[in-house]
Amino acid sequence: MAGPEIERLIQLMARLPGLGPRSARRAVLHLLKKKDALLLPLAASLREVGESIHACSTCGNLDTGNPCAICADPRRDETLLCVVEGVADLWALERSGMFRGRYHVLGGTLSALDGIGPGDLNVDSLIGRVAQGRIREVIIATNATVEGQTTAHYITDRLQSSGVTITRLAHGVPVGGELDYLDDGTLGAALKARRPL
Amino acid sequence: MAGPEIERLIQLMARLPGLGPRSARRAVLHLLKKKDALLLPLAASLREVGESIHACSTCGNLDTGNPCAICADPRRDETLLCVVEGVADLWALERSGMFRGRYHVLGGTLSALDGIGPGDLNVDSLIGRVAQGRIREVIIATNATVEGQTTAHYITDRLQSSGVTITRLAHGVPVGGELDYLDDGTLGAALKARRPL
Repeated sequence: MAGPEIERLIQLMARLPGLGPRSARRAVLHLLKKKDALLLPLAASLREVGESIHACSTCGNLDTGNPCAICADPRRDETLLCVVEGVADLWALERSGMFRGRYHVLGGTLSALDGIGPGDLNVDSLIGRVAQGRIREVIIATNATVEGQTTAHYITDRLQSSGVTITRLAHGVPVGGELDYLDDGTLGAALKARRPL
Repeated sequence: MAGPEIERLIQLMARLPGLGPRSARRAVLHLLKKKDALLLPLAASLREVGESIHACSTCGNLDTGNPCAICADPRRDETLLCVVEGVADLWALERSGMFRGRYHVLGGTLSALDGIGPGDLNVDSLIGRVAQGRIREVIIATNATVEGQTTAHYITDRLQSSGVTITRLAHGVPVGGELDYLDDGTLGAALKARRPL
């Protein structure tokens, strides 16, 4: 139906999360129609990002600079360190706009099933950063899944001797959430952590 | 949260149909993680297509060559011409694999409301192609909408004097469709066009 170059572009687009073969076709058609306004700028932007993207050697965040924009920002509190599983979690926390410290990206969670041990995660570099002595509090923000909690416990054990304050995100009712739709675990945690009004 | 280059890439991706701001962010994160396998090939593919894409000067199809792959294919029946509104319709017909003739892309439909007249569509070039005398049948495959049907009538009028056979796609029950969910117009058309079993 179209030249092999277009077919290849459709196949590449279809590998993006959220796009299937059909929507990739629609997206490519949209790009073809908006060549100067969208297709060429997107190509240039992709190449620019592709050529400059690196994992930050300090925190593991993916960014075009090294150190990344967050590690390089002098206005951010360097005594506060938030440990996350992946870059997606870092982005989610940044979107909230509520955290002004620095991050440490683990790059996954411990998982005996998938054969991922402490050596596969950025744990040693975390211990190293804490050992430098400037960090006052480590907030462990791994996911509230079995693997995330296991990883949180492991990191807590490793950091115990450093004397730093270790905290974790609060569990409870999501803002805007209805009790009727919440699972028992969340409701139990919200009850246990109840606060005076 | 990320460098301005990445933010710009997210904004561009969010302009694709089927992707919102949130899914664009997810797609970009996926691209960053698969730099060599997906991001750089996609950038190269976009640039390649962007630099070579043209509207075919014969039929109006978008392709990397001019004439397009369909107009240039000697195995396709040049006596059969299918008139469609846009490239998306051409692609849909090609996906069906049931049409082996050539196409003519109008580039839209007549619309008094949007101020689109015959001069804004590729109608004159259609009349010109038919006037060359090699085309035996024109299949008008505009959409079954008010604008599509108006356009079909207009083209039929313009081609009346050329002596070419003019047909349109059949209306009826979609294959796999259930009568209970069909609108009255389609059911009526299917009844009227009933065929002996």
